[in-house]
Amino acid sequence: MLANFAVNKKGHLTWGGADTVELAKEYGTPLYVIDEDMLRQRATDFQKAMKKYFPQGEVIYAGKALFCQALCDIVNELGLSLDVVSGGELYVALKSGYPPEKIYFHGNNKSLDELKMALNNNVGTIVVDNWFELNNLEELAKEMQKKPRIYLRIAPGIEAHTHVHIQTGQEDSKFGFTKDDALLAAKKASLSPNLDLKGLHCHVGSQIVNLESFTITAKVMSEIKAKIEREISKEIEELDLGGGLGIQYLPEDPYISPDEFVKAISLGLTDSNIKLRVEPGRYLIGQAGITLYTIGSKKEIPGLRTYVAVDGGMTDNPRVALYDAKYHAVLANKPQKEKTDLVSIAGKCCESGDMLVWDIMLPHIEPGDILAVFSTGAYNYSMASNYNLLPRPAMIFVRDGIPRMVVRRETYEDLLLRDIK
Amino acid sequence: MLANFAVNKKGHLTWGGADTVELAKEYGTPLYVIDEDMLRQRATDFQKAMKKYFPQGEVIYAGKALFCQALCDIVNELGLSLDVVSGGELYVALKSGYPPEKIYFHGNNKSLDELKMALNNNVGTIVVDNWFELNNLEELAKEMQKKPRIYLRIAPGIEAHTHVHIQTGQEDSKFGFTKDDALLAAKKASLSPNLDLKGLHCHVGSQIVNLESFTITAKVMSEIKAKIEREISKEIEELDLGGGLGIQYLPEDPYISPDEFVKAISLGLTDSNIKLRVEPGRYLIGQAGITLYTIGSKKEIPGLRTYVAVDGGMTDNPRVALYDAKYHAVLANKPQKEKTDLVSIAGKCCESGDMLVWDIMLPHIEPGDILAVFSTGAYNYSMASNYNLLPRPAMIFVRDGIPRMVVRRETYEDLLLRDIK
Repeated sequence: MLANFAVNKKGHLTWGGADTVELAKEYGTPLYVIDEDMLRQRATDFQKAMKKYFPQGEVIYAGKALFCQALCDIVNELGLSLDVVSGGELYVALKSGYPPEKIYFHGNNKSLDELKMALNNNVGTIVVDNWFELNNLEELAKEMQKKPRIYLRIAPGIEAHTHVHIQTGQEDSKFGFTKDDALLAAKKASLSPNLDLKGLHCHVGSQIVNLESFTITAKVMSEIKAKIEREISKEIEELDLGGGLGIQYLPEDPYISPDEFVKAISLGLTDSNIKLRVEPGRYLIGQAGITLYTIGSKKEIPGLRTYVAVDGGMTDNPRVALYDAKYHAVLANKPQKEKTDLVSIAGKCCESGDMLVWDIMLPHIEPGDILAVFSTGAYNYSMASNYNLLPRPAMIFVRDGIPRMVVRRETYEDLLLRDIK
Repeated sequence: MLANFAVNKKGHLTWGGADTVELAKEYGTPLYVIDEDMLRQRATDFQKAMKKYFPQGEVIYAGKALFCQALCDIVNELGLSLDVVSGGELYVALKSGYPPEKIYFHGNNKSLDELKMALNNNVGTIVVDNWFELNNLEELAKEMQKKPRIYLRIAPGIEAHTHVHIQTGQEDSKFGFTKDDALLAAKKASLSPNLDLKGLHCHVGSQIVNLESFTITAKVMSEIKAKIEREISKEIEELDLGGGLGIQYLPEDPYISPDEFVKAISLGLTDSNIKLRVEPGRYLIGQAGITLYTIGSKKEIPGLRTYVAVDGGMTDNPRVALYDAKYHAVLANKPQKEKTDLVSIAGKCCESGDMLVWDIMLPHIEPGDILAVFSTGAYNYSMASNYNLLPRPAMIFVRDGIPRMVVRRETYEDLLLRDIK
């Protein structure tokens, strides 16, 4: 799929139908470019798969992957529910007019202010992570005369095959109730007049490409659910198995469809009438995004390596430094030229770890060439920093070949916004 | 040194003479707090050491460690020179009125705009990293009728003992000319009517606690310098050996004084009249800074681990996720209470890698306790992100016990500043 990019008559890479070289010229680089059609297609595919296996299921977009008002509007238009993980994400969702009843509020350490904000705005579901939160929420709900719908987050003791930093389902995790505590918490919640226990939640990790992980998770969680239901003598109608579906970063990475993902879950869940919830973020937005950079300096170290530097780096994409993530790239102004040069792509930060791609074959590179790095839609814009005081890039959404700016480029003046002299 | 924190009559940790519990109350958490007196003392110590071994030497503050206008003013007042690595850092320095002639401009991929900005503002020294930059700078200088002072950055082929992400002196580096290319670049620069070749620069890595590394670097660089001088038949007066002096993150880490650092350099440099430049950043600001957090949720996993979560994390301190960095912490409201609990400190981001401290002994922890993490002055504020849409913390400078806010806390509204709906 990554190898099947489109090229126009000028021989330029197009994205969402737009000429990427023109985009770079018009909006400058580094530039995040999102193919809105791909995002919409993937969301629709996910909803279809869900309907096929779990007619009462729901697809929830995980806002932490990439979030801004324009994105939120699309999520709303498509009928996706929304997962937020902080007061900031909740604020943006509400500001953009997203219906609060469709919001799921996650987080391992929600503050009292965040919980109040959620209750005040009648957020649909609060995913309670721990005892501290359960107690706080019950007290607040009582004070505010509310009865929020809640899920309990559980650490099901599953070790998913992924990077240790994004593995979250194992027992030794900062997230969720242990299985034993979940039983007690469910009892407490089900007896409380101010809490409406509706479901259980887990999330076993990110960028998982082993379908069996999802089947096992579904099986384990439905066993935990049954045990809790027996204990509290009440049915728990909803089950949220989180996200985690891996995407293609390199052309050789496997593609797993939403159908395969939901089917894998269905193999572990006997009841197809269950109100299943899943929370894709990366799958929906990851491959829809590319980042465009302008090539600058080149350094040839005879017999060792050739470094080529771009005008961004770990500030707009910290995933390489954080997880040793691998990315694929092409020269947007000549994607089809013969690949003759083995190079490594460096960022412009004063830090050795600021690399984007190690050892990739590209056509002969000249300063001013435009580099397109693929699969940067998720966890790039959302994790960006101002390290080295580099301004953060603009973000463009493209639909049917028509670009529109949804986040403007940061200016030097912006960098002093909070600075008090 | 880290174990020798000060405590006031209330039994609270003080920082720069101010009660940290009061600071947390007044300014909220997470909060960066900088002991301005420690920063000043460390700068003065560095300048003294430099004067002792190299009377013509100069101490340059590396802005990328932590930079804002208030910091820049202190750097100026103390008579330190300044190292900037981007147009953004240069912008802030100029905006705060720092004298441009004392600025050293670094970076492995300076854009044409950045070079023009430097020339237009008569930046004191441009540290040229590679051929692309050398050629661009020469052309621009000619066009603009300037003759900038330049250094050549060299990768001296030294492997410093530090984290691979912050190791920069080895041959296989994105930074600097190879030794062979440096010779040719020096020739070109010395023959150019628009370039004033004044010095050589290298930086072998960060957080180095092995003094021998610095002696070797000095020795190797003075040999390279001699070779280049012979080749171009001209003396090169200035030698910039970068930064890299390690600090104490844990109480058991060794303390290395500026005197020991400069002395180690002097063992490799026979000529004490050389115009030596060094670029401490972390040493000056790192230990002067702490971060205050409020304790929230707690999760006990019997037989495994107890997680305690704070209201910040990898967004305000990405160094743990990036480099597996280790930090020391105390409970600011009861630093002297008996340490009874073995806990791990988690952040509030929806990511397993969002941890601040693994396995630390603390007094019995209650929600609402204030946690102080030490040695967060460098590469925390400067690397912070809005991941999970968490607003970035405020920063307080404390001098003689008097706090002043130098960076205000980010608001939810700020998060939408660049957002176009």
